[in-house]
Amino acid sequence: MITSRDNPKLKLVRKLETRRQRDKLGQFVAEGEDLVAAALEGGWELDFALVDAARAPDLPVRAEQVSSHLLAEVSTLGYAPRVIGVFRAARPERKLPPLGLELWRVGDPGNVGTLARACDAFGAYLALSPGSADPFGPKALRASTGSIFRVPMPDFAPQGAVALVAHGAPPLNELDPSLSRFVLGSEREGLPDEVVTACAASATIPLAGPAESLNVAMAGTIALYDWRRSHEAR
Amino acid sequence: MITSRDNPKLKLVRKLETRRQRDKLGQFVAEGEDLVAAALEGGWELDFALVDAARAPDLPVRAEQVSSHLLAEVSTLGYAPRVIGVFRAARPERKLPPLGLELWRVGDPGNVGTLARACDAFGAYLALSPGSADPFGPKALRASTGSIFRVPMPDFAPQGAVALVAHGAPPLNELDPSLSRFVLGSEREGLPDEVVTACAASATIPLAGPAESLNVAMAGTIALYDWRRSHEAR
Repeated sequence: MITSRDNPKLKLVRKLETRRQRDKLGQFVAEGEDLVAAALEGGWELDFALVDAARAPDLPVRAEQVSSHLLAEVSTLGYAPRVIGVFRAARPERKLPPLGLELWRVGDPGNVGTLARACDAFGAYLALSPGSADPFGPKALRASTGSIFRVPMPDFAPQGAVALVAHGAPPLNELDPSLSRFVLGSEREGLPDEVVTACAASATIPLAGPAESLNVAMAGTIALYDWRRSHEAR
Repeated sequence: MITSRDNPKLKLVRKLETRRQRDKLGQFVAEGEDLVAAALEGGWELDFALVDAARAPDLPVRAEQVSSHLLAEVSTLGYAPRVIGVFRAARPERKLPPLGLELWRVGDPGNVGTLARACDAFGAYLALSPGSADPFGPKALRASTGSIFRVPMPDFAPQGAVALVAHGAPPLNELDPSLSRFVLGSEREGLPDEVVTACAASATIPLAGPAESLNVAMAGTIALYDWRRSHEAR
């Protein structure tokens, strides 16, 4: 049982709170039973698991017990989760579906996590450009409710995809349904011209008024829904 | 200029952080220029405005100056907004559009605010049952990005509406387009039988697998989008 805050495993968990260390070490932390179970089921490689000594859950893997207060200290939740898993960031192999989202510098981890959930729900992949939020950071993982561990994650590639823009393009539901990949821009700036130009087409989600807007998570969810709808109706 | 934390206006702003006091006093607080401007433009009645003495914005209304540190203290933002407005909670009269969402005990203020934004974007109303999050609490207001001040808000009434359920009902896009009001259930429990029974029909958003799910904000956004799409296509 781990009873010292100087334990190297606890130190590593603390380190992995920053994206810099996650990128450098190629590891991330999943907190709580649901996320740890989703990562294991998704085939991600576990380095080690730590459980709250006072209320250890049943796990399909070996785990080390930690005093509750020490586990609470290294958690981003503000309390001790029943389990913390440290995983390798190497993505398990996944078959790439035709439907997918390509996110260009979407910086909010809540939006990245929510869109991972949408991709999982509609059977799509999720690609992130450099400058996007880390999908394996604590906030994105929580917002994804574990979906990120099931969704294929290829590299960002706008070529041949549809640029989803806020205004001025043809309506989304009139797109050629063979176009099944959607590029969404950053929360503040949308898509730059060079990314739109790289795409095969543009589309806009028609709204009630010109001043209105949807956030990127809502727009991406609608694009996935609409493609599935039109694809299944054919 | 207000320089004492015992000032009655600052005390009132502090009080209005709790839903109990908002309900009792029939007032709420909008923080920041964007929310205050949206409330004023939406016709909400301002009781008073407080501005940061160090960086007062241009406002179309009278405002009292407050020392930055005192304004920061009463703000839920963790810093001093340039302006805080205290408004009457009496809803300005609004024409009711045919399209709308009826939320049954949606308790997360972020979801309520996001759905207000979706209703605004698609020209819909938003009705909240008792037990839903307060749309005038600080988190819901921020998530709505001011949309809540433009959206009509009638009382919750599932009669004649469509119950959106996670599984087992006909697909959303096959609904009779004359049905234009959608009832969504709480994050944890969905819709209880008595609410589903009160509705005129049920619908499900088709997903890639039976284990998948959308959160209530995504489901409501899709329902609004799909109705607008099918309505405009006719």
